[in-house]
Amino acid sequence: MTWTINCDMGESYGLYTMGDDAGIMRFITEANVACGFHAADPMVMRRTVQLARRFGVKVGAHPSLPDREGFGRREMKLRPAEVANAVIYQVGALKGFLAAEGLPLNHIKPHGALYGMAAKDAEVARAIAEAAAVFGVPLYGLCGTQHEVVYPGNGTPFVGEFYADLDYGPDGHLVITREHHAVDPTQAAERVLRAMRDGKVIALDGSDIPVRAQSVCVHSDTPGAVAVARAVFEILQAARTAPQPAPAS
Amino acid sequence: MTWTINCDMGESYGLYTMGDDAGIMRFITEANVACGFHAADPMVMRRTVQLARRFGVKVGAHPSLPDREGFGRREMKLRPAEVANAVIYQVGALKGFLAAEGLPLNHIKPHGALYGMAAKDAEVARAIAEAAAVFGVPLYGLCGTQHEVVYPGNGTPFVGEFYADLDYGPDGHLVITREHHAVDPTQAAERVLRAMRDGKVIALDGSDIPVRAQSVCVHSDTPGAVAVARAVFEILQAARTAPQPAPAS
Amino acid sequence: MTWTINCDMGESYGLYTMGDDAGIMRFITEANVACGFHAADPMVMRRTVQLARRFGVKVGAHPSLPDREGFGRREMKLRPAEVANAVIYQVGALKGFLAAEGLPLNHIKPHGALYGMAAKDAEVARAIAEAAAVFGVPLYGLCGTQHEVVYPGNGTPFVGEFYADLDYGPDGHLVITREHHAVDPTQAAERVLRAMRDGKVIALDGSDIPVRAQSVCVHSDTPGAVAVARAVFEILQAARTAPQPAPAS
Amino acid sequence: MTWTINCDMGESYGLYTMGDDAGIMRFITEANVACGFHAADPMVMRRTVQLARRFGVKVGAHPSLPDREGFGRREMKLRPAEVANAVIYQVGALKGFLAAEGLPLNHIKPHGALYGMAAKDAEVARAIAEAAAVFGVPLYGLCGTQHEVVYPGNGTPFVGEFYADLDYGPDGHLVITREHHAVDPTQAAERVLRAMRDGKVIALDGSDIPVRAQSVCVHSDTPGAVAVARAVFEILQAARTAPQPAPAS
Repeated sequence: MTWTINCDMGESYGLYTMGDDAGIMRFITEANVACGFHAADPMVMRRTVQLARRFGVKVGAHPSLPDREGFGRREMKLRPAEVANAVIYQVGALKGFLAAEGLPLNHIKPHGALYGMAAKDAEVARAIAEAAAVFGVPLYGLCGTQHEVVYPGNGTPFVGEFYADLDYGPDGHLVITREHHAVDPTQAAERVLRAMRDGKVIALDGSDIPVRAQSVCVHSDTPGAVAVARAVFEILQAARTAPQPAPAS
Repeated sequence: MTWTINCDMGESYGLYTMGDDAGIMRFITEANVACGFHAADPMVMRRTVQLARRFGVKVGAHPSLPDREGFGRREMKLRPAEVANAVIYQVGALKGFLAAEGLPLNHIKPHGALYGMAAKDAEVARAIAEAAAVFGVPLYGLCGTQHEVVYPGNGTPFVGEFYADLDYGPDGHLVITREHHAVDPTQAAERVLRAMRDGKVIALDGSDIPVRAQSVCVHSDTPGAVAVARAVFEILQAARTAPQPAPAS
Repeated sequence: MTWTINCDMGESYGLYTMGDDAGIMRFITEANVACGFHAADPMVMRRTVQLARRFGVKVGAHPSLPDREGFGRREMKLRPAEVANAVIYQVGALKGFLAAEGLPLNHIKPHGALYGMAAKDAEVARAIAEAAAVFGVPLYGLCGTQHEVVYPGNGTPFVGEFYADLDYGPDGHLVITREHHAVDPTQAAERVLRAMRDGKVIALDGSDIPVRAQSVCVHSDTPGAVAVARAVFEILQAARTAPQPAPAS
Repeated sequence: MTWTINCDMGESYGLYTMGDDAGIMRFITEANVACGFHAADPMVMRRTVQLARRFGVKVGAHPSLPDREGFGRREMKLRPAEVANAVIYQVGALKGFLAAEGLPLNHIKPHGALYGMAAKDAEVARAIAEAAAVFGVPLYGLCGTQHEVVYPGNGTPFVGEFYADLDYGPDGHLVITREHHAVDPTQAAERVLRAMRDGKVIALDGSDIPVRAQSVCVHSDTPGAVAVARAVFEILQAARTAPQPAPAS
């Protein structure tokens, strides 16, 4: 059982602070770093990459629709080439800071509405896959959506995620909200462990639905995010080192 | 006598067109491509890099202060780290498109007010040099300014430029204007040849002053830019192939 | 027969020029002035209002979705309050320049995708009507759409438009394109006259469909826009002064 | 002794929160509301105006240089017409929200670097005064600077301010910092009372210097701003109602 924990972060901007990146960094394995379209600016990106380096956290790009006012969480109708080039621009910019700090790019994970649009719309997903192919890294996304279908079909490795702090509909779709609401850290962690180990989660309507994922995502802008990340980290650590049941003989 | 001709280009934006990039491309050897801060957007950057590839023109980054409304031609007081990171961001973004099109980054040339500020202010020049060091390419600039002093002092190769379409003051300083004015192509070309071959130019006050440069710059947003670029290209071509005077014995 | 001719204008930005506002101004009666979200900046807005004053042209606000890169022609999912407040912000800003030049606000006409979204979506139209109610001026829009239904229902006078340079679908819907294509001025003018006088237009599929409108719209960013505006202006002028058929007795 | 307390506020943006506007509102008499160039967006402006109305606080406009990333605290070289039109745009936009909420515009107070530039540069101050004249309201600023000289000279009433949370140099100039640092509320309040009642303040070098002001300014983005505002409010309230010394007979 080896799971990664990824976190959307580096989402401060100018004098505005979003999330406690330094607090969260010790409880994750991969940082999805904002690239200036929905959040962050060059100073914030540099600092976030430096922080990740200090904690030995791998860095992925977290590109967005060009909508800072809406924090990248409002759908926009872009042409496929606009999507692809917006992603290339942002990932390239982040790679500049990675080069400055001597780190490789680990993956790409689209942000917010772009992520949600790609889940539903194969054309958007394909544009993202084309951009990712330029950089030769995997794309993170949701199993059971166009992410899982289109990304690998375009030659880009796909890594499925489970969301520690968002709800799932009874049909398995992730409920993406503009603002993230507080969750109980212990309950979130137990829900994560069940999802990762047993492949099950209780949906919004109380039904028990199957989920598949290789990585757990926590958001840095969820209230109490550090506590959530810590609880998830500790429960997964414990599960990893727990004596395994003897395989059925 | 081997001179390059570089041109600031790729400065369209959304539905707005600036300059005739396709017309100019055949008369230059190096394109300084706008990176989205003073001009350009991801679509324009992709198209400009594709155009350069088609014409075999080398591509440099043309990063700017973050001021699209002022086309990067208004001075802004940024901290050195803000300058360095703004440059890294923009150059990185351009490298994304270069990677997509299989081209290397050739050089970096700061745009507009950033260029002018670095000419006067060693701290700004140093911040730019630090950013350029991340990418390991030369910086273009003006001989006799902080460009020439600071860039090489920070380990970054420096390439001096002569401006085909801007005036020089009697003290040798370049007169950078917010809007570029039309120049006579033939006169501009003769002025360029004299500057490159003889190291002399007539300043605004009529005095004849020395200039040094390895590359000629034309602006794509100067009215009649294609004719200027063509005249410069042809006069330099002719000079290159002309029989050389016998060296003094 | 008294028809107005309105034109979307003031869409230059910084050093970027869009349309020949000075050329068009003499052939229109009302200017829809861009407010800085899809085009224009404070300098352009001031100049456009001054130009309208010089030609005795009435000024309306032309607010947009916040998307300069897409020229306001890409749909964005905004909440109703976001739409209303974006419109209030932009119209208020324009009123600042009208106050500076001693002119009243004549009307509001949403731009591009916002216009198209309001045509289909009553919630968007209602948000726009609420914003317009703050300023007490009519809204321009399309007959047969939510514009005509929702605007007056919220107490805001509605003025129907016919588009001189865009196509109509067989069901009467306007085909809004990201870039506007050239049209033949004479044909456009004849089409306008027929639409305004006879209430008929040939749709894209060749069918003859009914249209209703009180005002004709021409776009300043359509290639050859001045010639189109002039032809429309002249044909409507001529129709206005032509001897009227004796009413049936 | 009747002093007003003004506060720069409404500086949140999208999902980013800046300052505790609701907490501060009860301790001030005038709100300087950000207009979207350095901070705020249409939603934030609407909410801030509504909040001011609820607390009976007068509303002034707080226009800035166009620099959200630098929070309007980085100097930019704008032409005077650019300054004037940027101010008109922003104040007009705010007036849209005031109209929506039925409030008048009380005053204009330039923000950050624009404020500082106008203090030193008569040309900038004149451009601001021209913009303010469009709206017929007073300008807030610093005594002993170009604010006090130029604003009234251009027919715009001037209101001098004392800063509760910033330092003064020995020559009386205000030390404007990019980020505001925490101050002790009680000490700040006592310093304010001394400044307003006795016209004296201890400068950075320990010297006692004269100050003149009619209004006290507190910043909403200073750490602990609510406590500072409250302490200032209470000490000024107490001073107002204290028995006055008998006039010298």
